[in-house]
Amino acid sequence: MWAFLQGNGSPFEVVEREDGFVSAASSNASYFADVKHWSPIEQRAIRFARGRTALDVGCGAGRVALHLQAKGFRVVAIDNSPLAIKTAKTRGVKDARLLPFEHVGQLRPASLDTVVMFGNNFGLFGSRARATKLLKVLHGLTRDGAVLLAYSLDPHETNERAHLEYQRRNRRRGRMPGQIRIRIRFNQWVGPWFDYLLVSPGEMSAIVDGTGWEVDRLLTDDGPRYVAVIRRV
Amino acid sequence: MWAFLQGNGSPFEVVEREDGFVSAASSNASYFADVKHWSPIEQRAIRFARGRTALDVGCGAGRVALHLQAKGFRVVAIDNSPLAIKTAKTRGVKDARLLPFEHVGQLRPASLDTVVMFGNNFGLFGSRARATKLLKVLHGLTRDGAVLLAYSLDPHETNERAHLEYQRRNRRRGRMPGQIRIRIRFNQWVGPWFDYLLVSPGEMSAIVDGTGWEVDRLLTDDGPRYVAVIRRV
Repeated sequence: MWAFLQGNGSPFEVVEREDGFVSAASSNASYFADVKHWSPIEQRAIRFARGRTALDVGCGAGRVALHLQAKGFRVVAIDNSPLAIKTAKTRGVKDARLLPFEHVGQLRPASLDTVVMFGNNFGLFGSRARATKLLKVLHGLTRDGAVLLAYSLDPHETNERAHLEYQRRNRRRGRMPGQIRIRIRFNQWVGPWFDYLLVSPGEMSAIVDGTGWEVDRLLTDDGPRYVAVIRRV
Repeated sequence: MWAFLQGNGSPFEVVEREDGFVSAASSNASYFADVKHWSPIEQRAIRFARGRTALDVGCGAGRVALHLQAKGFRVVAIDNSPLAIKTAKTRGVKDARLLPFEHVGQLRPASLDTVVMFGNNFGLFGSRARATKLLKVLHGLTRDGAVLLAYSLDPHETNERAHLEYQRRNRRRGRMPGQIRIRIRFNQWVGPWFDYLLVSPGEMSAIVDGTGWEVDRLLTDDGPRYVAVIRRV
């Protein structure tokens, strides 16, 4: 993102899964996109943002934070990438903090009305156990009536043999099928391995159950991607 | 290419260099492009094709072979990738053969008028020593007045620190600066490591010298890419 902001073209990032499966994306257009160019499910979902204060989880280049700021929200934008924070600040995000999601409990209790995890960022929960724990933390950080907008991708909607085999392997290891262990590569940089959690709507509901949240509505399109509107109970 | 031809979107291929530098490209549009959508240097260069019989080295999806066939050439198209050959044949290349470039000496002596190495395929020479050897082989395969159209990229036209460091390392090892050792990854597939040779125009002239060929003309644009028109002497 920083390279893109510096005008160095539209570089590719490579996502490498632990089984050697690689994919690549030139995601910069989407990381920097104005709301009019977001995916339709995100455009519909962001209208469910409510209250005065929002948390943007995995803010990246800050597209969600900038939109909510313009709508009058106070926004806390967090990311674990120093260059993402630098990019977001450069673009005008007022309160962008270098804070890994697992440390989100450092934020002020009962201070948030909306939590946004767009661009597949339900994945940042990483695993079922960590999701349960962090959903409870988010419950403590939010106020009555808060909403969590969580974007995921149903990993079961695939015919790709390599993905199906990887999911079977995950099940055998006691991991969720869509709990992918990946790392990001860009030019000569190789990031650390981390778990990223892809879930079906049913799996998401089961995870959320009992954490102080519940899935209220699913915004879907024709593909495997969706945004869940999750309400604090 | 085969996945693209089957309609599976426009997948990315990942190029991994031995030092861990990765890049990615969705090259399918260019692999399948009609002559009107080739790079300007290739459009200018292909007009130098002459005679009746042409060799397309590293034919890929067959864009050059199809163009020359349409122009009335007899074309032998070779590639070391079975799926590239399958793709080229499916698209109408009449004589596409699974033949690694290093075995090109198997073709009939004194049978070719034009040899085309587009899309950076001077790189298939791999190293200075192999280039010298294969240029002599190509001399034997060609007739009087033959032309070799060789596309390369000047590796010295970069400010990227990782590239400059890699080039220094190559020099220390007695390799040409632009002799990159890479492998191609696509989804779960990982190809073998191989050498791919990027040269400046001066380095190309020095390599060609004494092999029965000489660089006659350079077709350049504003960037590091160029096509050399090389004539049989």
